[in-house]
Amino acid sequence: MLTLYYSPMSRASRIIRLIDELDIWSEIEIRRVSVARLDGAGGQDPSNPHPDGKVPLLVHDGVEIWESNAIILYLTDLFPKAGMGPVAGDPLRGRYLSWLAWYGNVVEPVIVMGAAELSHPILTATFRGQAEMTERLVRALEGSPFLMGEQFTAADLLMVSPFTWAPASTPDHPLVRAWIERCDARPSAERTARYDAEQLQEAGVA
Amino acid sequence: MLTLYYSPMSRASRIIRLIDELDIWSEIEIRRVSVARLDGAGGQDPSNPHPDGKVPLLVHDGVEIWESNAIILYLTDLFPKAGMGPVAGDPLRGRYLSWLAWYGNVVEPVIVMGAAELSHPILTATFRGQAEMTERLVRALEGSPFLMGEQFTAADLLMVSPFTWAPASTPDHPLVRAWIERCDARPSAERTARYDAEQLQEAGVA
Ligand SMILES: N[C@@H](CCC(=O)N[C@@H](CS)C(=O)NCC(=O)O)C(=O)O
Ligand SMILES: N[C@@H](CCC(=O)N[C@@H](CS)C(=O)NCC(=O)O)C(=O)O
Repeated sequence: MLTLYYSPMSRASRIIRLIDELDIWSEIEIRRVSVARLDGAGGQDPSNPHPDGKVPLLVHDGVEIWESNAIILYLTDLFPKAGMGPVAGDPLRGRYLSWLAWYGNVVEPVIVMGAAELSHPILTATFRGQAEMTERLVRALEGSPFLMGEQFTAADLLMVSPFTWAPASTPDHPLVRAWIERCDARPSAERTARYDAEQLQEAGVA
Repeated sequence: MLTLYYSPMSRASRIIRLIDELDIWSEIEIRRVSVARLDGAGGQDPSNPHPDGKVPLLVHDGVEIWESNAIILYLTDLFPKAGMGPVAGDPLRGRYLSWLAWYGNVVEPVIVMGAAELSHPILTATFRGQAEMTERLVRALEGSPFLMGEQFTAADLLMVSPFTWAPASTPDHPLVRAWIERCDARPSAERTARYDAEQLQEAGVA
């Protein structure tokens, strides 16, 4: 049994989008929980088993799976039919793992430190910055419409996620803007937005 | 064909340790390159194909695989015999993916921001801090000698790696200290240290 702990318009929304792309709505129970928001709203939900009270959290037959990129990899491996990520043995598997890891190891820190307006030589040495992040995306998108090639995969789904809600951190480059538009044009984007809006309303009413 | 771009006493050393644990020395060509060190020594190596001039980088039949946690997952999946990480289908697979992802998403940022002596409400909200990191490790080690259970896996290998070279960021808790000692007692730790020392000497002489 699969259970997703989710909160509307949060980092869990990308897991909703993945569920939609994989077409596995009937395979996962989604439990809405509250989380502490950056603006001070909300708060940790005692019914959320995540040790830091965060979302997303996936529980599969009692095993907790946390961190968005781990959850995404787990689900694309479990449900490979939709072709949302190359499975083990595929020659592009390593590139897929690298995009997912790089998103968490580098892109989120760069965005968060940008939002906090922090800079420090150790941060730059370790994570580099916005310019290098953009350069990496541009290099990939010069050769193909999506990060992994001709097909939209969960690497795109994850990588595009902060840029759709944090335009300030969005790389200002025509190739990146065109890629964001291609990603946004997929029906899963609108369905996820609608799901989030409905859930937000229900949460407010409850 | 597998090629590892490596530099002595760097984040690539943990890949050397994994090669030793997997006993795949004969399967991987190791190319030593220079990298820019935090103290200003060294510099990017034109023979290193990594776009940021970093290590580790693994190249498998022409496909570049970057980010330590992605490389580690790739190798434990490719060489499952040593039991260094549960493969897809194993009930503990999700926990393994989570530890690897959490290391990169949370542990490295927490250590790096600690080293830079930075703090900010957005950082705390996103990554939490040293106390929560320690708490998570302690929770896991209360029930078993290693993060995944009875057996040392690549999750331990990765997670312990900063603590062996950055004692300042090492959680000060008896369970964590005992776990570090257990990890350090494995022959791969000493063999990696020896390999690093030899390579450092060769690099200095060359
Ligand atoms: N590294 C985690 C971050 C998860 C995260 O920070 N989620 C936010 C929602 S956008 C959260 O739950 N915040 C509430 C809190 O930090 O207490 C991931 O990628 O899944
Ligand atoms: N997130 C990367 C970080 C790699 C990294 O920063 N490696 C350091 C060596 S410890 C490096 O190559 N530094 C040289 C540079 O940044 O130019 C990983 O986990 O593999």
